[in-house]
Amino acid sequence: VGERLVVIGGDAAGMSAASQARRLRPDLEIVALERGTRTSYSACGIPYLVGGAVHDVESLVARSPRDFRDRFRIDVRLRHEAVAIDLDRRSVEVRDHGHDRTLSVGFDQLMIGTGARPFRPPIPGIDLPTVHGVQTLEDGERLLEAARRARCERVVVVGGGYIGLEMAEAFVERGAEVTLVEGDRQVMRTLDEDMADLVAGAVRKHGIDLRLGVPVTGFEPGTVHTAGGDVAADLVVLGLGVLPNGELAAEAGLATGSRGAIVVNRRQQTAAEGVWAAGDCAESFHLVSQRHLHIALGTVANKQGRVAGVNIGGGYATFPGVVGTAATKVCATEVARTGLTEREAAIDGFRFVTARIDSTTRAGYFPGAGPITVKLVAERETGRLLGGQLVGQEGAAKRVDVLATALSARMTVHDLVDLDLSYAPPFAPVWDPVLVAARKAAAAVDADRR
Amino acid sequence: VGERLVVIGGDAAGMSAASQARRLRPDLEIVALERGTRTSYSACGIPYLVGGAVHDVESLVARSPRDFRDRFRIDVRLRHEAVAIDLDRRSVEVRDHGHDRTLSVGFDQLMIGTGARPFRPPIPGIDLPTVHGVQTLEDGERLLEAARRARCERVVVVGGGYIGLEMAEAFVERGAEVTLVEGDRQVMRTLDEDMADLVAGAVRKHGIDLRLGVPVTGFEPGTVHTAGGDVAADLVVLGLGVLPNGELAAEAGLATGSRGAIVVNRRQQTAAEGVWAAGDCAESFHLVSQRHLHIALGTVANKQGRVAGVNIGGGYATFPGVVGTAATKVCATEVARTGLTEREAAIDGFRFVTARIDSTTRAGYFPGAGPITVKLVAERETGRLLGGQLVGQEGAAKRVDVLATALSARMTVHDLVDLDLSYAPPFAPVWDPVLVAARKAAAAVDADRR
Repeated sequence: VGERLVVIGGDAAGMSAASQARRLRPDLEIVALERGTRTSYSACGIPYLVGGAVHDVESLVARSPRDFRDRFRIDVRLRHEAVAIDLDRRSVEVRDHGHDRTLSVGFDQLMIGTGARPFRPPIPGIDLPTVHGVQTLEDGERLLEAARRARCERVVVVGGGYIGLEMAEAFVERGAEVTLVEGDRQVMRTLDEDMADLVAGAVRKHGIDLRLGVPVTGFEPGTVHTAGGDVAADLVVLGLGVLPNGELAAEAGLATGSRGAIVVNRRQQTAAEGVWAAGDCAESFHLVSQRHLHIALGTVANKQGRVAGVNIGGGYATFPGVVGTAATKVCATEVARTGLTEREAAIDGFRFVTARIDSTTRAGYFPGAGPITVKLVAERETGRLLGGQLVGQEGAAKRVDVLATALSARMTVHDLVDLDLSYAPPFAPVWDPVLVAARKAAAAVDADRR
Repeated sequence: VGERLVVIGGDAAGMSAASQARRLRPDLEIVALERGTRTSYSACGIPYLVGGAVHDVESLVARSPRDFRDRFRIDVRLRHEAVAIDLDRRSVEVRDHGHDRTLSVGFDQLMIGTGARPFRPPIPGIDLPTVHGVQTLEDGERLLEAARRARCERVVVVGGGYIGLEMAEAFVERGAEVTLVEGDRQVMRTLDEDMADLVAGAVRKHGIDLRLGVPVTGFEPGTVHTAGGDVAADLVVLGLGVLPNGELAAEAGLATGSRGAIVVNRRQQTAAEGVWAAGDCAESFHLVSQRHLHIALGTVANKQGRVAGVNIGGGYATFPGVVGTAATKVCATEVARTGLTEREAAIDGFRFVTARIDSTTRAGYFPGAGPITVKLVAERETGRLLGGQLVGQEGAAKRVDVLATALSARMTVHDLVDLDLSYAPPFAPVWDPVLVAARKAAAAVDADRR
């Protein structure tokens, strides 16, 4: 008998690892256990499915179980839920929901890609059927179905992070009356307050009833109770972030860290020989803060999964870490961030200066030029770039990639000032907004030194 | 009497230097000599003026002479053409076209920002009034006027570089019948042939009659003679590149180098004390090829001008050099390049591998997702990124900035593979095309090592 790789979780991390391992090891037997009914889908596409920009659930599936079977010889077992891992016996106990039975699957190597789940704080009524999380395509389909029902006119979104804002917009697109309730004083805690205010403005302008500093106290059918009064709701969407599904690993004796995410080394290996983890269930190393933390993003899951797969396949790959990049589009406003915000830099003990500038996404005279605000955080004395935030119209968000690259290369804001960034009137002003911000940040570092 | 700075040339480099010097030296007397009638304009906007996307010539002027006078106390003298520099006497001989007189203006410091002019090879008839170069706003106005005349139905553009392609598109927008004649076998010699072919396809699809490998042999009123036969032309536009206006400096005894561009050090200083040069008339240092060469781009001119101005003002600034970034939009197709192409890398003696990939600008399922092709050139053995080229739909070009940043930081393609670039369905697939290309390039480097 040959060697067997068992993969728990048929989404980004698990299936990236599986297909990468297959490329390197044609001989490997690969079994993938997926408790749902789909593989490798874009959960990030759910808001656009609900909003109507994407018409077909299946278009969010990058690769189907059949693709994996036919092209990669991966034995994908749907509705198979791993319920326990036995590291000594090297086997996984699996609940086969299709046949209502439990079986044991032995492994030589094990890849854990169990993902994350929407955070549901212990608020009365949070488990009502009208209170929806957004994580799997099944969630997306349930939401879509609920949204299509005639009575779904009043939608309350709880939480003003990426998913909350995207879902709020989606329901506006559907013609619903949308209230977004956020316990914090700002939307997007991943931005500094001054930048988040720009997003809040855009959200309100789009017709969303945004209520900040209003914690939710309970749910009842038809009503959301908040510290600021009751809000009528045919449907509630939770956007309170996610928690890593690290319990299965923890119960097997594997170490978990930040928020319960699985601890891995740079090769995505757990402390157990031949046991790997990646994606939303695992920790990531942040190159700027130098902390291990939990980041649930499809792009990170794919990268970590690939690294795990190379190593499982006998190759050598390491995941260098993240710099905390994230982006979204809220109504017509693009939002992106990378590195550390002011708040995060302070927590990490950095001393820093900041610079914020307003510019335009294209040459000012070019049709379609829109406003963009760029904020940079730079370390005092050294001028090292610590982070950046951008809010603006079309073309704003992707500019964060220059900053993400600069963070990886540990560049200073002085290094950024004269970067040879592209310019043409449809794309940028002659001084790209990122460079204008860098110039101001460099001047702030210099002034601070004196 | 105080110290006087004389600036020759009232556009990007000259006026950036002047206003930067003013910030640092409130006491300095600043005189700017401009032979035309405008200051600080966007020559890059001319195609959009002619095409109709930009309606007003004046909107291309970033700062008028009045702005400089009132806000920066810079004495801008229009229609004043510097005709000689005397470095011993430290004076400039100036032809005042407005009053038809010649005067001498003494300087303590001199900033040369004389720009560039369209290249006019010695082809019979090239100086006909129907044969237009595109450089100054006056050129733009003349073109616009010619285009508005009833008889301007057949336009021939000579040269398939940035300006040639942009002008060809502009005249298509105006409803003209446009033929683009290029002596080389490809458009855009700044791209490798395989990438240029993608651009050629887009150009032809847009209805432009593109004739490659057809040198122009002469011009007559109403006709362009080419090696491939005559083409009827009410109007001819030259897009054969530009030459630096380095003669004035050369005649004064200053060194000129590549194509006659003025030699400067990293502070934008010429060999003469207190004499500076920047922008289209000066050389630039290319960080990858490590050559001094002539690059005529508004963005470089502004940066070099700023550096010169800081130094003139008594500060210390250096221009780090360029990496050869350029971008344009041709019809709906975005084109960008940075670093070295295959051809350039070979000339510079690099041994390299290349990788080319096709992907989409957004998540494949997201509305508006379009094709994008990315090509990378990486050094053999070391894997150092040497250059990149991108051709694709909306969102393609600005991705070159990641590569430009990586070139400045001397990153390898392996460093790029797991960069934490932003992802959201409206902006990118989960693996950004740049990362997909990096992965393929890294694999090519690895395979080559074995």
